[in-house]
Amino acid sequence: MENSLELTTTIALNAWNIHIDRVNKIFDELSDDELAKEVSPGRNTGIYLLGHMAAVHDAMLPLLGLGDASYPQLVPIFIRTPDKSGVEKPPVNELRKCWKDANGKLAERFNSMKPEQWLERHTSISEEDFKKEPHRNRLSVLLSRTNHLASHMGQLLFLKN
Amino acid sequence: MENSLELTTTIALNAWNIHIDRVNKIFDELSDDELAKEVSPGRNTGIYLLGHMAAVHDAMLPLLGLGDASYPQLVPIFIRTPDKSGVEKPPVNELRKCWKDANGKLAERFNSMKPEQWLERHTSISEEDFKKEPHRNRLSVLLSRTNHLASHMGQLLFLKN
Repeated sequence: MENSLELTTTIALNAWNIHIDRVNKIFDELSDDELAKEVSPGRNTGIYLLGHMAAVHDAMLPLLGLGDASYPQLVPIFIRTPDKSGVEKPPVNELRKCWKDANGKLAERFNSMKPEQWLERHTSISEEDFKKEPHRNRLSVLLSRTNHLASHMGQLLFLKN
Repeated sequence: MENSLELTTTIALNAWNIHIDRVNKIFDELSDDELAKEVSPGRNTGIYLLGHMAAVHDAMLPLLGLGDASYPQLVPIFIRTPDKSGVEKPPVNELRKCWKDANGKLAERFNSMKPEQWLERHTSISEEDFKKEPHRNRLSVLLSRTNHLASHMGQLLFLKN
């Protein structure tokens, strides 16, 4: 059954990579001006979603126990505060770099992980609770973050003509 | 390692169920008039997305080898044809029923499946190809359909005030 775990983690990583590629393609095709627009009237701007996803993916490193966050300064701006709050945002080109860098670091760590390491606990659950709830593992974080990425991808598509 | 497959399928099913619940909540909260609106100017209407997702989920039954589709008539309208093509659509209350019914049938089948059955092939890959590509199994369909659901959920949220 070792093989089945390798299969399931491969499937989960494929889904993650497919969505990272799709969202990269959307961001790469959009100019900074296009990214500054709201994805739908009165909703988040593309820049906010870029910063939000960069912050969320960067925070996956410590959440998965795979390293420190590189851009914790994005969290108060793009996770704890909504768009159009008046808080100053970093320049778009910087956010583009954070996004690619966070995903690059995750890819590097993911590539060196053994299948059974995906069943280890993530760092926001205690060892004690993890004994009772073993499904709160790294794999569950990967699936929920892929779905998070897919939901914002659906919104970012509206910035394209 | 039997246990690890049970864990991973539980995690994947949890993610599916969470998104079904969230999208149900959105549809239940929206009136038929609100569903008739475009999720964003010039984009799909809520009704189209409801029919589209009902059609896609209904088609999961044969794709997963778990039964026949109940609403194949939705496929040409909501999968093969874009919104606003002029093709007549079924009434919204009927689409709401198809959506709930398809998901109900899937839930029933999923609940009776053993973990190892998720590693069996889906019906759009031949037995021969499946030997070479064992990751093209039922679990991969579940993950990709959950991401599909999440991406449209992100869009449907724009119909809410």
